[in-house]
Amino acid sequence: VSRLDAAVAAVERLGPLDERAMAAAAAHLDALTKPQGSLGRLEEVVVQLAGIAGEAAPPVHPAAIVVAAADHGIARRGVSAYPPEVTAQMVRNFLAGGAAINQLAAGIGAELVVLDLGVVGPVSPPGDTAATVRLVSGRIRDGTDDIATGPAMTRDEAGAAIAAGVDVAAELAARGVRLLGVGEMGIGNTTAASAIASVLTGFPPDSVTGLGTGLDADGRRRKVELIARSREVNRPDPRDPLGVLAAVGGLEIGALVGLVLGAAAARIPVVLDGFIVGTAALVACDLAPGLAPRLIAGHRSPEPGHAIVLQRLGLRPLLELELRLGEATGAALAMGVVQAAVRIRDGMATFDDAGVSGRA
Amino acid sequence: VSRLDAAVAAVERLGPLDERAMAAAAAHLDALTKPQGSLGRLEEVVVQLAGIAGEAAPPVHPAAIVVAAADHGIARRGVSAYPPEVTAQMVRNFLAGGAAINQLAAGIGAELVVLDLGVVGPVSPPGDTAATVRLVSGRIRDGTDDIATGPAMTRDEAGAAIAAGVDVAAELAARGVRLLGVGEMGIGNTTAASAIASVLTGFPPDSVTGLGTGLDADGRRRKVELIARSREVNRPDPRDPLGVLAAVGGLEIGALVGLVLGAAAARIPVVLDGFIVGTAALVACDLAPGLAPRLIAGHRSPEPGHAIVLQRLGLRPLLELELRLGEATGAALAMGVVQAAVRIRDGMATFDDAGVSGRA
Repeated sequence: VSRLDAAVAAVERLGPLDERAMAAAAAHLDALTKPQGSLGRLEEVVVQLAGIAGEAAPPVHPAAIVVAAADHGIARRGVSAYPPEVTAQMVRNFLAGGAAINQLAAGIGAELVVLDLGVVGPVSPPGDTAATVRLVSGRIRDGTDDIATGPAMTRDEAGAAIAAGVDVAAELAARGVRLLGVGEMGIGNTTAASAIASVLTGFPPDSVTGLGTGLDADGRRRKVELIARSREVNRPDPRDPLGVLAAVGGLEIGALVGLVLGAAAARIPVVLDGFIVGTAALVACDLAPGLAPRLIAGHRSPEPGHAIVLQRLGLRPLLELELRLGEATGAALAMGVVQAAVRIRDGMATFDDAGVSGRA
Repeated sequence: VSRLDAAVAAVERLGPLDERAMAAAAAHLDALTKPQGSLGRLEEVVVQLAGIAGEAAPPVHPAAIVVAAADHGIARRGVSAYPPEVTAQMVRNFLAGGAAINQLAAGIGAELVVLDLGVVGPVSPPGDTAATVRLVSGRIRDGTDDIATGPAMTRDEAGAAIAAGVDVAAELAARGVRLLGVGEMGIGNTTAASAIASVLTGFPPDSVTGLGTGLDADGRRRKVELIARSREVNRPDPRDPLGVLAAVGGLEIGALVGLVLGAAAARIPVVLDGFIVGTAALVACDLAPGLAPRLIAGHRSPEPGHAIVLQRLGLRPLLELELRLGEATGAALAMGVVQAAVRIRDGMATFDDAGVSGRA
């Protein structure tokens, strides 16, 4: 777990956001030909980016999106509208360029990386493909165990999943990536996410459990019961985030914890996707208090647990478009907003340059 | 006013959205490798685009943004945080490429057109410029009269402003534009917009009046009083939208009415910007009932009247980013979301193509 400890220590060493860089960014925004603050959330983002990077006008190119993927033992109990083999099928679809995230990543000019932590079944693409998606293996094991009967994985495996995420973040940082979006693929993973959210926020399973990608009311009721059972069986301690991850989490959720920590440690702003990524961010913030201001909540999903998790993180989402797909689709759309904010920051004229009068 | 009547008649002839095209678009979305409906608002947009165009998968390129600009007599009373000369200064800034909308239009690959209906002062750019912004003159008069003492303009002038917008929409349609965003520039125009909103929705001025681009509480109180006085002096009849526009509206608001009508008549989806554009859309929908489903609400602004206007239009905004700049900035950001939705529609693999299993 030493890579985890190192990443946590690196985030802690950064301390709070850089106030001087934020003040410089805010002053620059105020000099641009628009009423002060009139670009609302876009201006907030520009100031936050400065605080994260420690410079007034950090670039957000190149951008990368990492989709962490793994399978879940609990999926065999029908907690998803889709069968477990869809995880591997969708990873192959990512690699072949056929998924929603392929289109959205291309639309914002972001590199797409698929990180396999433990997908059951073959994950190489079906044949030659024109898609420029990179598959990185961080395989720990073939999916998790059923959390309704025991822990998802061992503590070491949870640490290894986090370390795999830290490694990918470090590699992207070394290659100069300046904006990271993160998402996930794993049939059954809203169940794991709801279990984590329930343990870490103290809300009962019923409050943080939704329909996932398309359960009916009966399916949701079974899901809530299984989450409650996973808590009884594993008795995870909310003061031990790594233990919670090992007990009721998922391999891809662990990797997301590491991606968030690793990117934050490298001063790279991280745009979060939906509910599952949100729970990973919550684990990461419980491991490294002070991390949250380095995160940008991309999209609030309709999953009832997501609003609760975002509240705990103290983050307001940029978008609410009723997406419930995952794959970093919400993150990618929000990254487009971040890029637009930076375009404005870098491209607009100042009042002086343009000969525009200030306030009356 | 015959161009107005013709545009209204053309919209009425279209009737409701094309159900067959919408069903085809929905069926296509359901075949793509994602849970049905999991792309939320993006899927709604794709279906709406089909219904508007009358074809299952209409393109949204080329895209154009029109910013209608004019001055307001009421601005001399200090209803804005900025002096009236800023309207002309900002139009020159648009033409020189220095404004926020220049950056956002470039970011989504949209042509930018500035339509001058009555800006006071010179509007040609200060010199040679590399910006590719087109200035179109639809000048009616040098700004409106003070609505606190009489009508903003004559009924004929209001009709002419609408006709100028219809003409620009027709020209863009003839050149093949398939997605239109509309915005405005005019110091003092939230006062006119609040007056229109108050008359057409029946809400008192206080409920539909906000801080504009940066008033303080005292400034807002004066603004509310002037709006109330404009209603007493002019006694606009809410059943006569053209009369309301002439009495308490603005030249650029009239042009926006025409742009919305003209684009809708040409089956071009129109992405609305903020509060002022919203009131223009309300006038247009009162002139041509059945128009609203052809509009996409891009962004909800913090102006309290905007939520009321959107409610009356029956439109839900795609974005809420606390923008209060105008210039079509909210529309441009939402057009990026529309483009992303279309990318997904056109680029994703189907379950069959990708060999992905359907629901369990």
